[in-house]
Amino acid sequence: MQPAKPAPTRFRSGRHFLQIPGPTNVPDRVLRAMDRPTIDHRGPDFARLAGEIFEGLRPVFGTEGPVIVFPSSGTGAWEAAIVNTLAPGDRVLMFETGQFATLWKRVAERLGLVVDFVPGDWRHGVDPGAVEARLAADRGGQGKAQGKAEIKAVMVVHNETSTGVTSRIPQIRQAIDRAHHGALLMVDTISSLGSIEYHHAAWGADVTIGCSQKGFMLPPGLGMNAVSDKALAAARQGGMPRSYWDWEDMLKNNASGFFPYTPATNLLYGLREALTMLHEEGLANVFARHARLAEATRCAVRAWGLEILCAEPAEYSNVLTAVMMPAGHDAEVFRAATLSRFDMSLGVGLGRLAGKVFRIGHLGDLNDLTLVGALAGVEMGLTIAGVPHRPGGTQEAMKFLCDGV
Amino acid sequence: MQPAKPAPTRFRSGRHFLQIPGPTNVPDRVLRAMDRPTIDHRGPDFARLAGEIFEGLRPVFGTEGPVIVFPSSGTGAWEAAIVNTLAPGDRVLMFETGQFATLWKRVAERLGLVVDFVPGDWRHGVDPGAVEARLAADRGGQGKAQGKAEIKAVMVVHNETSTGVTSRIPQIRQAIDRAHHGALLMVDTISSLGSIEYHHAAWGADVTIGCSQKGFMLPPGLGMNAVSDKALAAARQGGMPRSYWDWEDMLKNNASGFFPYTPATNLLYGLREALTMLHEEGLANVFARHARLAEATRCAVRAWGLEILCAEPAEYSNVLTAVMMPAGHDAEVFRAATLSRFDMSLGVGLGRLAGKVFRIGHLGDLNDLTLVGALAGVEMGLTIAGVPHRPGGTQEAMKFLCDGV
Amino acid sequence: MQPAKPAPTRFRSGRHFLQIPGPTNVPDRVLRAMDRPTIDHRGPDFARLAGEIFEGLRPVFGTEGPVIVFPSSGTGAWEAAIVNTLAPGDRVLMFETGQFATLWKRVAERLGLVVDFVPGDWRHGVDPGAVEARLAADRGGQGKAQGKAEIKAVMVVHNETSTGVTSRIPQIRQAIDRAHHGALLMVDTISSLGSIEYHHAAWGADVTIGCSQKGFMLPPGLGMNAVSDKALAAARQGGMPRSYWDWEDMLKNNASGFFPYTPATNLLYGLREALTMLHEEGLANVFARHARLAEATRCAVRAWGLEILCAEPAEYSNVLTAVMMPAGHDAEVFRAATLSRFDMSLGVGLGRLAGKVFRIGHLGDLNDLTLVGALAGVEMGLTIAGVPHRPGGTQEAMKFLCDGV
Amino acid sequence: MQPAKPAPTRFRSGRHFLQIPGPTNVPDRVLRAMDRPTIDHRGPDFARLAGEIFEGLRPVFGTEGPVIVFPSSGTGAWEAAIVNTLAPGDRVLMFETGQFATLWKRVAERLGLVVDFVPGDWRHGVDPGAVEARLAADRGGQGKAQGKAEIKAVMVVHNETSTGVTSRIPQIRQAIDRAHHGALLMVDTISSLGSIEYHHAAWGADVTIGCSQKGFMLPPGLGMNAVSDKALAAARQGGMPRSYWDWEDMLKNNASGFFPYTPATNLLYGLREALTMLHEEGLANVFARHARLAEATRCAVRAWGLEILCAEPAEYSNVLTAVMMPAGHDAEVFRAATLSRFDMSLGVGLGRLAGKVFRIGHLGDLNDLTLVGALAGVEMGLTIAGVPHRPGGTQEAMKFLCDGV
Repeated sequence: MQPAKPAPTRFRSGRHFLQIPGPTNVPDRVLRAMDRPTIDHRGPDFARLAGEIFEGLRPVFGTEGPVIVFPSSGTGAWEAAIVNTLAPGDRVLMFETGQFATLWKRVAERLGLVVDFVPGDWRHGVDPGAVEARLAADRGGQGKAQGKAEIKAVMVVHNETSTGVTSRIPQIRQAIDRAHHGALLMVDTISSLGSIEYHHAAWGADVTIGCSQKGFMLPPGLGMNAVSDKALAAARQGGMPRSYWDWEDMLKNNASGFFPYTPATNLLYGLREALTMLHEEGLANVFARHARLAEATRCAVRAWGLEILCAEPAEYSNVLTAVMMPAGHDAEVFRAATLSRFDMSLGVGLGRLAGKVFRIGHLGDLNDLTLVGALAGVEMGLTIAGVPHRPGGTQEAMKFLCDGV
Repeated sequence: MQPAKPAPTRFRSGRHFLQIPGPTNVPDRVLRAMDRPTIDHRGPDFARLAGEIFEGLRPVFGTEGPVIVFPSSGTGAWEAAIVNTLAPGDRVLMFETGQFATLWKRVAERLGLVVDFVPGDWRHGVDPGAVEARLAADRGGQGKAQGKAEIKAVMVVHNETSTGVTSRIPQIRQAIDRAHHGALLMVDTISSLGSIEYHHAAWGADVTIGCSQKGFMLPPGLGMNAVSDKALAAARQGGMPRSYWDWEDMLKNNASGFFPYTPATNLLYGLREALTMLHEEGLANVFARHARLAEATRCAVRAWGLEILCAEPAEYSNVLTAVMMPAGHDAEVFRAATLSRFDMSLGVGLGRLAGKVFRIGHLGDLNDLTLVGALAGVEMGLTIAGVPHRPGGTQEAMKFLCDGV
Repeated sequence: MQPAKPAPTRFRSGRHFLQIPGPTNVPDRVLRAMDRPTIDHRGPDFARLAGEIFEGLRPVFGTEGPVIVFPSSGTGAWEAAIVNTLAPGDRVLMFETGQFATLWKRVAERLGLVVDFVPGDWRHGVDPGAVEARLAADRGGQGKAQGKAEIKAVMVVHNETSTGVTSRIPQIRQAIDRAHHGALLMVDTISSLGSIEYHHAAWGADVTIGCSQKGFMLPPGLGMNAVSDKALAAARQGGMPRSYWDWEDMLKNNASGFFPYTPATNLLYGLREALTMLHEEGLANVFARHARLAEATRCAVRAWGLEILCAEPAEYSNVLTAVMMPAGHDAEVFRAATLSRFDMSLGVGLGRLAGKVFRIGHLGDLNDLTLVGALAGVEMGLTIAGVPHRPGGTQEAMKFLCDGV
Repeated sequence: MQPAKPAPTRFRSGRHFLQIPGPTNVPDRVLRAMDRPTIDHRGPDFARLAGEIFEGLRPVFGTEGPVIVFPSSGTGAWEAAIVNTLAPGDRVLMFETGQFATLWKRVAERLGLVVDFVPGDWRHGVDPGAVEARLAADRGGQGKAQGKAEIKAVMVVHNETSTGVTSRIPQIRQAIDRAHHGALLMVDTISSLGSIEYHHAAWGADVTIGCSQKGFMLPPGLGMNAVSDKALAAARQGGMPRSYWDWEDMLKNNASGFFPYTPATNLLYGLREALTMLHEEGLANVFARHARLAEATRCAVRAWGLEILCAEPAEYSNVLTAVMMPAGHDAEVFRAATLSRFDMSLGVGLGRLAGKVFRIGHLGDLNDLTLVGALAGVEMGLTIAGVPHRPGGTQEAMKFLCDGV
């Protein structure tokens, strides 16, 4: 079986299937909303725009407090969370749930934090028991001043985009509470927000990190921080030398609908439209839709006889599914075949998973038939790339979608 | 089994599946090309635009002669063909291949022509033998002046959009030639042009009727006539009183890149881009793609145990497939379920086929995965609407698409 | 003085000034509304679209009766008015107010009408006195059967786009009434509708002809007819052989939100948005804005010492101003200089005015500063083309715009 | 004189005049280029996009070395320049040329640098003599180790967006050279790049800071650094703790057409189109156009009898003109009147100039007639706001534009 030869870009017909776990498909409504002249970011029309966005963002994060929007990638929002609240030398607790947790840890270390990085197998989420144990051990341990906690923050990735594993934030919160530990809880919701349930305030997060190109159905270019009073207090008393990422400057200007420096105006047009769409559908409906499409995907994977990377059903991601390749088969050969033959982009295996998994994104602006088309593309791709599997996964997904809801 | 309840329009997520046999999916490139300020249609930029369009249209029609573009629907292009070449009372030969042939006949009659309408069962194309017999009988028959032919035109629909049957134009041409008859040959290629093979000049057509919203992948609003020298001569010597549809006015103005009245400028922007896309892919590749997607569709229909309306495999349409509903089942109930539950539009049964067939469009800007998604939508729609069928058609189509090419 | 050398198209910077009297500037909102996938014109979403359009159109025409929308240019809507109500050989009364009246007359003649064409100097509108006189003479005149009126329709152009003269429809209506004549009143409002006051019903018009690319701020491609009960009755009893333009087919289908043949769906998207914009601004405000911009333009022309073509101030058009070139100067040389040097399109002199006038369009989506920019372009164009004039017209227009509300 | 009453946003007709010195008018070509689905930023199409952008950017910066593009505002690119090359406690030389120089100084200080901030009157550019004197004094001064230079960087703003003053970079370079000083030269070209002449390499800059929303005619959201080998060496040996802004990560990934984190893909689509436009027009032509439009603006200001803020003609900015209000008149009242009455945004007076100046942006995608419209808006705004001035400035600008070229 030889791989299909790619069709040159310009000969492709029809719509590309973008089934990576972000950037996601940008709805036409959002693209059209951005396709407008840039306005004066110091004028009254802009202030109205900003006000509507802040209003619409809060329920998506699940907070009545401030949400800060940076012209940046999500990586920038990671950095913002750190430089506002922590100082070089501060100790933080992180968990190796996958590539993005590992990258965030790298950011933390580059900025001078000392990271307790709890190892993981990239198939499970954060273990709440481990959180509790680590925090409990943080007081009065060997060589430590009696009762003086060293860990300043617990930093977890809600939905690991590299593995398709969703950590259980409420349980983690409870673990921190059980340990009676005052660490800040920082949560990366980059790929979960607006797709699966999340509550910044009710779940007791101190900083929630988001971005534009996943559940918000926008192009990349906006990073976000929702912040608790506790996080704001930490920022006021400390943090690192900072300018671009400074929360206080932002909040002062945001109060009247402006920004301390030029914001990414046209992406904000798109954000307003995307928020309108999310609220029109209703967040509960959005989450139910993602749950349904995700389960259909898992039906297909099981029927193919392939293994889902996520080892714990309670932690299955409704945003993406990472699928393990049978031994001896390179995920990259398969992905290339699928791209060239069926014009579909699947997610690459990242970091230590390179070549070993492929990821099916099923988030954002997506419906049943597009998902089935994508699953068919996977199934046909497995066939033409000669990857051993049982046919019929697409059919199983269809069966689920007919029975469901 | 109760029908699915429709999701309100504003809650729909993802992309609508427009699987009717036209209007077809308008590619983003084409939509974006039209999303531009309208220019002065008497200025030099416009003349350049028009020149490029006439240049690009000719190979798609398969002619080196003129192609005339009206701001109209395809129905208008039908009317233009008639009023330029025929006079009230003229006799023409038409064939009841389906709803569109019937409608064209109605246009002809309303404009005063006498139509010999050869009856048909809506499951076959035009019979070349019948063409020959009718034309042969047109000379020296009973009560006619010796050798004086009465039939002025043979008017056929190349691809019957209501039935999914493609008439064999070259054989019809040969039939006319065998009868040594001088009638004009007028061909409606509204739903075939740019999707399946057609050659205005080589196949000896005198007037070829096209429009924008099928193979040209544009919104509706442009009607077209390719005309032979013989048709032009007929127009010069006769036709009906006419103004809007007059070819001569058009050709005189078109010669310098202009129009006798305001053209549909932004649709012409789109047409230029669509022609660029067709020529980039290459017409032969476009036709092969349609053949492949059509056969995949037929694989699915056969596997479902449903009947294809077209009774003659040599006349299968590569543009759409009309599928017969099992007795006792209303196609409209099925179509409504498919629309409300899966956000897919299928073609309605037209005229005498109302309620008895549904039509799957597989033309225009379309690729494998979108087609499979559409076929899955049909299969799931059959299930939720309780229409008896064998599951597995989608799987069969996938099998064909893997083996094919 | 040598003419400016044109900048190649691709080197132009900034926005083209489209100051022709239509097509007009299409607002971004309208372009973006059209930049969407075409939908099934037989589905429920389409019916909603059509319903909203018919609802929004009626107040713009000033009628509670039907408005019919064709996929055609305005010329097609001329033809539709004729073929539905009049028969070959019918006599109609028309007035030579300019090029478009002359072209409409040509359409009428080509379709077999007998036109009484009252000559004019292209500087005045229709003379209501002449209407009355002609109609009064239409009964019991020499060689006519006692009391038998021959004139079936009075056909006038409301705003002559070639001359910038607006005929006084209410006075014409009164003239018909004074003559107690039953002729249909047909009014071409192609360039007036949505820009200057018009009332189909209150002014007693029987057929009002409109199109998309002027006051509706759309690209070309839609022709319209508002029709009175009297016109509908005439259509039911007679008219010419017709199919495409048939009102009855249209109205029957429109009743449920559909069309007898494929409508120009994406232009209809734009029409809905344009109607929303007109009603947001309020028609009275729209008319006042046009009146103000038109008077500013005339201030400029007077200050330049040039002559306005329209000889009667009560007939000045608020849509465009035609300006007479000083003797010995070719308007085309001037227009070419203005286009090449300042990237502005001005209207050409049409028909017998070729080379003798240029026309400044000031209609549609236009504001004070764009108008001043356009007037400055005219003034600078006069300078670089060596056309004798007094400088300062732009300054005068600015003065008026400051004084005026 | 009472201020004009603002028209509610939704009633505005025509195109807004955005005459602030950035964000500038985004050409339709660029908006349309961004109005496309986001692609996989790890796929082959993206790598092609990135390659074309890096290729096109270099000549605009005037370098054959790397240009780094961040998803950020220009402020972020300031920060990036600092954190890659300088350490906390490092001394740098900056000049108070206006608000943006002051803001950049604030960024530097917040990041821990020690800034020698040479005071200025906000009406002049950087004095090359002062640069030389300061650098010469930096060796062997009182209390310093013999010959040990302390100043690590000279940081200047090329075009002060708050004042309309352009500093003379080549002379500053020569001053550094005359002082035989090894400080890095960092130049903020945020509002100059792509509008007025600049040569990163030939003028000996080490870091050049740019962004998307000025001469690049894009919406905001991209920050840029062009870097010299010397700057890269400094980065490799030091700088501050950093992650998001790290050059090395960027360059490593950029080498194959990718980015270390998700780039602002759709803005990059726009950047590619904007670069195409700049190179089509030719940079020399772009610069000449800006020079011409700027001089026309200054003609108007002089004719009005108002004072240009920039006190040194050799430093006039071709990007914007800041105009001083007559004593006793508030620029904000004037700007509000101009916005509400003429729908034009002018630049606000920033920092110590608040209320005292307004700024006319004349950069980016702009042509003669739009500029004249804008100048007319200023002149009429002065009138309706009761600001003393001589009428006729617009007329003077028109005169210049006719004579020019």
